Amino acid sequence: MLGRVNHVAIAVPDLVAATASYRDTLGAHVSQAQALPEHGVTVVFVELPNTKIELLEPLGADSPIAAFLAKNPGGGMHHICYEVDDILAARDQLASGGARVLGGGEPKIGAHGKPVLFLHPKDFYGTLIELEQV
Amino acid sequence: MLGRVNHVAIAVPDLVAATASYRDTLGAHVSQAQALPEHGVTVVFVELPNTKIELLEPLGADSPIAAFLAKNPGGGMHHICYEVDDILAARDQLASGGARVLGGGEPKIGAHGKPVLFLHPKDFYGTLIELEQV
Repeated sequence: MLGRVNHVAIAVPDLVAATASYRDTLGAHVSQAQALPEHGVTVVFVELPNTKIELLEPLGADSPIAAFLAKNPGGGMHHICYEVDDILAARDQLASGGARVLGGGEPKIGAHGKPVLFLHPKDFYGTLIELEQV
Repeated sequence: MLGRVNHVAIAVPDLVAATASYRDTLGAHVSQAQALPEHGVTVVFVELPNTKIELLEPLGADSPIAAFLAKNPGGGMHHICYEVDDILAARDQLASGGARVLGGGEPKIGAHGKPVLFLHPKDFYGTLIELEQV
C-alpha cells in the first residue's frame, strides 16, 4: 500500500528563522512561504533530491498544529506523508485491519490539492501518518 | 550541503509488533531485524521506493534511544538522516554557522558502516539531524 515518502513535516514556531536555518546553515534549496489559511498553516518546502521536508508554522486561531507546538514549543517532527494509489482502498484496508482513520474517514483535499487522510498516531507507535493519493 | 533523505528513524517499544504493523497493516516491504549491539539498537528497515524508514528498538543497557522512549513510551519519530558528500566539510561549515555537532564533532561509523554525525536538535527546531557520508 505505502508508496513514496511524499514529505516529512516539521512544525516550527518561527518559519522565517527555520527557513533561514535550512537554507543558510544546512545549504538546502527552500521554496517561498505559502500561506494556506484553509489548512491553518504557512508552509515552506525544503526540496531534496528524493523527497521534501515541509516546514509548518501555525496560521490563524484554529491551526491543526497549535496543540503540537504548545506541547513542543521549540518545534519538532510532526508527521510523515506516504503516497498511495487509491486512498479509498487504502482506507478500507486499514480500517479492516483495525487502524483508526482520523476525521471520520472521509478524505479531504490536502495542502497539495490531492485527497489525504490521517491515521491515529497511537496505532502506529507515536507517528502521525498522512496518506496522499497521487 | 544536504543530499537525499537516507532514512527517517522511528523509535518503538516493541519491534516485532511495529514490524508487523508496517508489513501487514500498511503493506510495506520490511527487512529482517538486525541486532547492532555496538549501536545499542535492533533495527528493521521499511523499504520504500525513494527512501527508507528505520524502526529502532533499544538493545542493551546503554541504548542511545532509551531516554527518548522513557519520554515517549509509545514510540515516535526520532531523527532524520541526510546524505552529504563530505562529512568533514559539512561539519566545519555547520560549526562555523554556530550549529552544535554532538559527540565532540568526530564522525563515528554508523549503523550502515558509513561515517555519521548528529546535530543538536535545539539548533534545528526540535529535529535531531543525522548526517551520513555516502
